[in-house]
Amino acid sequence: MNNGKAKPGHFYAVGVGPGSPDLLTFRAANLIESADIVIAPRSKRSETSLALKTVEHLITSQQVVDHVYAMNRDYTETMKLWNEMAELIIEQSAKGKSIVQITLGDPMVYSTSCYLLKLLHGKLDHENICVVPGISAFQTVASKFGEALTIQEDRMVLMPATNIDQVAEALEHCETLVLYKAGKKIKELADLLKEKDLLENARLVCYAEQGEKEFMAHDILEAADGKHGYMSTVIVYINRQEWKK
Amino acid sequence: MNNGKAKPGHFYAVGVGPGSPDLLTFRAANLIESADIVIAPRSKRSETSLALKTVEHLITSQQVVDHVYAMNRDYTETMKLWNEMAELIIEQSAKGKSIVQITLGDPMVYSTSCYLLKLLHGKLDHENICVVPGISAFQTVASKFGEALTIQEDRMVLMPATNIDQVAEALEHCETLVLYKAGKKIKELADLLKEKDLLENARLVCYAEQGEKEFMAHDILEAADGKHGYMSTVIVYINRQEWKK
Repeated sequence: MNNGKAKPGHFYAVGVGPGSPDLLTFRAANLIESADIVIAPRSKRSETSLALKTVEHLITSQQVVDHVYAMNRDYTETMKLWNEMAELIIEQSAKGKSIVQITLGDPMVYSTSCYLLKLLHGKLDHENICVVPGISAFQTVASKFGEALTIQEDRMVLMPATNIDQVAEALEHCETLVLYKAGKKIKELADLLKEKDLLENARLVCYAEQGEKEFMAHDILEAADGKHGYMSTVIVYINRQEWKK
Repeated sequence: MNNGKAKPGHFYAVGVGPGSPDLLTFRAANLIESADIVIAPRSKRSETSLALKTVEHLITSQQVVDHVYAMNRDYTETMKLWNEMAELIIEQSAKGKSIVQITLGDPMVYSTSCYLLKLLHGKLDHENICVVPGISAFQTVASKFGEALTIQEDRMVLMPATNIDQVAEALEHCETLVLYKAGKKIKELADLLKEKDLLENARLVCYAEQGEKEFMAHDILEAADGKHGYMSTVIVYINRQEWKK
């Protein structure tokens, strides 16, 4: 279904990876290049859409719809904005347009695409809705350090760093812990890891694959100044669960 | 560093994604196309390397080294084979060759690349070893069903389905559970999920994005015949942990 151009009346939620244009997949590039409409979400705080910047070399005559969303945690407001976008998609797909919504990372992993997909469910034909995976930040971060996330019988947990109690709980139930949105919790997190004798097993990357903004640290406290806010990922290597004899 | 061709004396562990050539990234394709040597691992049971099949359109004058490995769980034997491969890489990189090892999925997620990277550590210069992430099977599987793996505060656990007790434990500590290598455990797993009233929340895909071999089921028991062995992924949607007020 996806080996080629965007089809009339179809909606595609497309992951563009972490921000480096060459970490885009061919499928994503083909769809973006051939779409009638490209929806690029950006937060109210940003002047440009990072996702759009990643694919700007593919934009020629497509109509680009800049979807500004509030970065607060208000579910009602969030859904109101996405409802407007869903209506636009339904309207345009009925006219035979092909629509691609681009999103940083992977559309299935902490992505804004989820809201749209939920709203389109039942309104567009199931076969007219496609999702294209993208490289997620945690994969990029792991590749930077070249240390495996999982081998053999390992369990990996992926979660936001927002609730430190849940982070502490997770440390007891996996071999590798990946934390998103760690920026504002670095000090609390470092205290917890120190207590568990795991501080040296943690790695941090902020803005992975976003050019000069990229910041890597073997010591997560290097990011404790809070400057490396939202897009920071921490990997904690707890243990290895090797093959049982 | 990676925006282009493979460099002399460098080793690249490159993820080629789940098996569909258009789910390769541009970075992966550029490196494979320009490498002197491409190492393609395949299991003793397979006639062809699935990873190599995914990139065969990129192979022209590169030397292809077919690395056959035993799929048993013998660590000593596994490491002996990888030691031979590591020696070849060290020898060839010293001669100024560029070497790419391709691997299905992502090199950091349950991949054979980990063994090589471990063995090369300290033998090749750190800057001469690069990892390129790839789309992992669980991302493809989630995209097929179009259901988000994680939103907002959700925790995701990724693990093999080999130990059912650990699977049961994981169900208590996350909102989404992703199980690899589920093929042989489908019945046990279905019993567990039924007991927890989660059977209807499970999805299964075998051989995702591997052409006609692909098999998808909303009812995981459809794969209980054991025919859909090794490359089967199960996603269990347990709950959603929405934003706290």
